[in-house]
Amino acid sequence: MDRSRLEAFSDGVFAVAITLLVLNLTVAGPGHGELSHQLGSHWPSFAAYLISFFVIGIIWVNHHVLVRTFVVVDRLVLFLNLVLLLFVVLLPFATGLAAEYMSAYLNHSSGGGDVRLAMALYSAVFLGMSIGFTGIFEWTLHGGHVANPVPPERQWAARIRFTGGSGAYVLALVVALVNAIAAFVIIALIAVYYVFENTPTAPATPGEPGEPPAPDSPGGDAPRT
Amino acid sequence: MDRSRLEAFSDGVFAVAITLLVLNLTVAGPGHGELSHQLGSHWPSFAAYLISFFVIGIIWVNHHVLVRTFVVVDRLVLFLNLVLLLFVVLLPFATGLAAEYMSAYLNHSSGGGDVRLAMALYSAVFLGMSIGFTGIFEWTLHGGHVANPVPPERQWAARIRFTGGSGAYVLALVVALVNAIAAFVIIALIAVYYVFENTPTAPATPGEPGEPPAPDSPGGDAPRT
Amino acid sequence: MDRSRLEAFSDGVFAVAITLLVLNLTVAGPGHGELSHQLGSHWPSFAAYLISFFVIGIIWVNHHVLVRTFVVVDRLVLFLNLVLLLFVVLLPFATGLAAEYMSAYLNHSSGGGDVRLAMALYSAVFLGMSIGFTGIFEWTLHGGHVANPVPPERQWAARIRFTGGSGAYVLALVVALVNAIAAFVIIALIAVYYVFENTPTAPATPGEPGEPPAPDSPGGDAPRT
Amino acid sequence: MDRSRLEAFSDGVFAVAITLLVLNLTVAGPGHGELSHQLGSHWPSFAAYLISFFVIGIIWVNHHVLVRTFVVVDRLVLFLNLVLLLFVVLLPFATGLAAEYMSAYLNHSSGGGDVRLAMALYSAVFLGMSIGFTGIFEWTLHGGHVANPVPPERQWAARIRFTGGSGAYVLALVVALVNAIAAFVIIALIAVYYVFENTPTAPATPGEPGEPPAPDSPGGDAPRT
Repeated sequence: MDRSRLEAFSDGVFAVAITLLVLNLTVAGPGHGELSHQLGSHWPSFAAYLISFFVIGIIWVNHHVLVRTFVVVDRLVLFLNLVLLLFVVLLPFATGLAAEYMSAYLNHSSGGGDVRLAMALYSAVFLGMSIGFTGIFEWTLHGGHVANPVPPERQWAARIRFTGGSGAYVLALVVALVNAIAAFVIIALIAVYYVFENTPTAPATPGEPGEPPAPDSPGGDAPRT
Repeated sequence: MDRSRLEAFSDGVFAVAITLLVLNLTVAGPGHGELSHQLGSHWPSFAAYLISFFVIGIIWVNHHVLVRTFVVVDRLVLFLNLVLLLFVVLLPFATGLAAEYMSAYLNHSSGGGDVRLAMALYSAVFLGMSIGFTGIFEWTLHGGHVANPVPPERQWAARIRFTGGSGAYVLALVVALVNAIAAFVIIALIAVYYVFENTPTAPATPGEPGEPPAPDSPGGDAPRT
Repeated sequence: MDRSRLEAFSDGVFAVAITLLVLNLTVAGPGHGELSHQLGSHWPSFAAYLISFFVIGIIWVNHHVLVRTFVVVDRLVLFLNLVLLLFVVLLPFATGLAAEYMSAYLNHSSGGGDVRLAMALYSAVFLGMSIGFTGIFEWTLHGGHVANPVPPERQWAARIRFTGGSGAYVLALVVALVNAIAAFVIIALIAVYYVFENTPTAPATPGEPGEPPAPDSPGGDAPRT
Repeated sequence: MDRSRLEAFSDGVFAVAITLLVLNLTVAGPGHGELSHQLGSHWPSFAAYLISFFVIGIIWVNHHVLVRTFVVVDRLVLFLNLVLLLFVVLLPFATGLAAEYMSAYLNHSSGGGDVRLAMALYSAVFLGMSIGFTGIFEWTLHGGHVANPVPPERQWAARIRFTGGSGAYVLALVVALVNAIAAFVIIALIAVYYVFENTPTAPATPGEPGEPPAPDSPGGDAPRT
C-alpha cells in the first residue's frame, strides 16, 4: 500500500460525499405552493449545504497537506483514515437531518426537542471528522511516519490548535442541546472561520528542522502548497 | 498540495455531478398512463439533461486545460476551485428544478411565475460556474502562478472573452424573469455554441511568449492539447 | 489535455454509473407482501442489473485498451468521448425503465406497448454506447492519432467487427418493437457473448506493423494487456 | 491495460459504493413521531452501516495489497475483478434490505421469514465478495501473474485462510435461515475481527523467496505496506 492509493480512495470518497450533499436540496415540486415560498421555507437546506460543502472541502485540503508528508502507510493509519471517512460519508445524512428539522421547526411543524437532537447529531458528525483527523495527526508524530514530524517542544502547541477545532464542535454540540438556532450559528461561524483563516486545521509540521513554524505546509516543498 | 491532487478531486466531483444528472430522468412508472406520453411530457428533462451534460463536460475540458498550466497551488486558488465546484454540484438540482417546472408549465399544471424562477435559478447556477472559472483565470494572471500567463496587452481581450461567456448567462437570467421558454432556448444555444466552437471558455494564454494567441492551449506542449 | 486526464474523468463516470445501477434494485419493503414474492416478481431488475453491469465493465476495459494507444488528445476525440459517456450515464435510467416495465408486464399490470418501448429505449442506449465507441475507433484511424493505427487493408475488417456489435443492438431494438421478451433475451445474449468472447469490442489495431492481427492488444506491449 | 487503470476504476467503484451506504440512513422526518424514537427504532440501519463500511474499507485495503503485486493484467483477472465489484456494488442494496427488515421485525411489523431471507441475502453478498477476492488470489498463484507468488508448499495454508473467511459467511448464511439476529451478530463479529486482526483476508504471498511467511505484505517493499 503506497500513499497514492490512500489518496485516490480518499479523494473518491470526499468527491462523492460532497456531491451527494445536493440530494438534500429538494422541493416538493409543482402543485405544492409557489416555488419561491418552497425555496424560502427551505433556506436552512441551502445554508447547511454551503456549510457542509466548505467544511468537506477544507478537510480535503488539509487531508492532502497531511498525507503527502507520509513516508510509510501502515494498517493503523489506514484504520484512522477509515474512521475519518466514516464521518465524511455520514455528513450528507446529518446535513439533511439538521436542515429538514430546522425548516420544520421554523415552520412550526416540528417541536424544539427534535431540532435540538438533529443539530446535536450534525455537530457530532463534524466532531467525529475532527477527531478522526486529529488521530491521523497524532500518528504523524511517532515512529518516523513522516519526513519532518513536529518536534516535541511544539507538539503541545499543535495539539492545542487541534483541540481548539474539536473544542468548537463540542461547544456546538452542547449548545445544540439547549438552543438549536444558536448551535447552527456556531457551526456556520466555524465554517466561515475555516474558509478565511489561512491555516484552518492544517498540521503544525514545519518544512525543515530549525525553521520557524509553518503549520500548513509540511514537507520540503512549502512554496508549492 | 500539488496540482495532481487538485485535478483528482475536481475530476471526481465533475464525474459524480455529471452522472447524478441521470437521477432527474424519471417517469411515474407503470399505471400512470402510457409510457410514450410520460416520456413525451417530460421532454424538458431530456433537453436539460443534454444541456447540463455537455456544459459540465466542456467546463471539465477547460478546467484541465487551465489547471495544467499551474506552477503553484495556493489556498486562494483552492478556494476559487471550491467555489466553481460548489456550482457544479448544484447543477443536478437546478437542472431538475428547471426541467420539472418547465414540464409542469407546458402541461398547464404550474403557473408562469414558478417556471420563470426555476429557469432563472438554472441560469444563475451556470453563471456561478462561469464566474468561478473566471476567478481561477484571473488568478493565473498574477504572481507567477502559471508558466506562461497572458501578457498584459492581451489580458483585456481575454477578459472580454470571459465576460462574453458570463454575459450570455446574465442575459439568460434576465430573460428568464420575463419568458422562461426564451431563456431555455438561450441556455440551449449557449451549450450548442460551446460544443461546436473550437475554444469555448478556454483561457487565452499563449503557448510561448511572442507567439500568436492560442487561447485554448496554454503551456509549452500545445500540440498535445 | 493529456491522456491521463481523459482516463481519470472517464474512469470516474464509468465507476459512478456502474454503481448507480444498484439504485434500481428496490423492493417495496415491509408490509407489502412476502419479501420472497417481492424479490421474485422483480427478477427482471436483477437480470438487467447483471447485463448492464457487465456491459459497462467490458466497455470500460475496451475504452482503456483503446485510449492508451492515443498519442494526441484533440477536441474532437474529447467530444466523441463525451458522446460515449452521455450514453453510459443514461444506462442506469434505461436499465431501470426496462426492468420496471418488464416486471409490470409479467405481473399483468402494464400493457405490451409500454414494455416494448422501454426495451427499445434500453437497446437504443446500448446502441448509442456502441456508436460512440465506434466514433472513437474511427478517430484512431486518421492523422497520427495513435502510435500504430490499423493499416488500411484491415480497416474494413475492423469496421465489420464494430458494425457487428452495433448491428446486434439494432437487431435488439427492432425486435423490441415486436416482442419485448425476445429483445431482452437478445440483449442478455450479447452481454454473455461479450463476457466470454476474448475480444468483444476491442479495436483491431495490431501491436507492430507486419505482425499478424492482434485486435485486442494495440500498442507495443501486448503481453501486458 | 496496465495495473494503474484497474486500480483507478476499482477505487472509484469502492469509493462510490461505500458512500452510497449513507442513502440507507433515512428517517421518516418531521410529523412522524419524535426523532429520538425514529432513530432508536432504526438502530439496525446504523449498525449495518458500520459493518458494511468497515468491510468495504478492509476489502479495499486487501484489494490493493494484492493488485500491486501484479506483473500482468489479463482478461481473466479483469473478469474476476468485475465479479468482485459486482458484489461490492450490491452491498448498499443488501445492507438496506437487511437493516430495514431487521427494524421491522424488531418493531413487530414484519414476520420472521422475511428478516431471515433479508439477512441471508446480506450474508450472500459478503460471501460473493469473499469468493470474488479468492478468485483473484487463486489467479495470482499461476503463470507468472505476480512477482512473488505463494510457493506451492504454502498454498494450502493460504487457501485455508481464505476458506476461513468465506466459511464464516457461509455460516452466517446458514444461521440466517434459522435465526436472523444470530446471523446479524455473526456478521458483526466478522467485521470486528477484520478491523482488529492484523491480516484479515490479505494474500499469503511472501516478500522474498526464502523469507518467513508475511501474508499481508507481498512484494519486496513490505515495510511500506
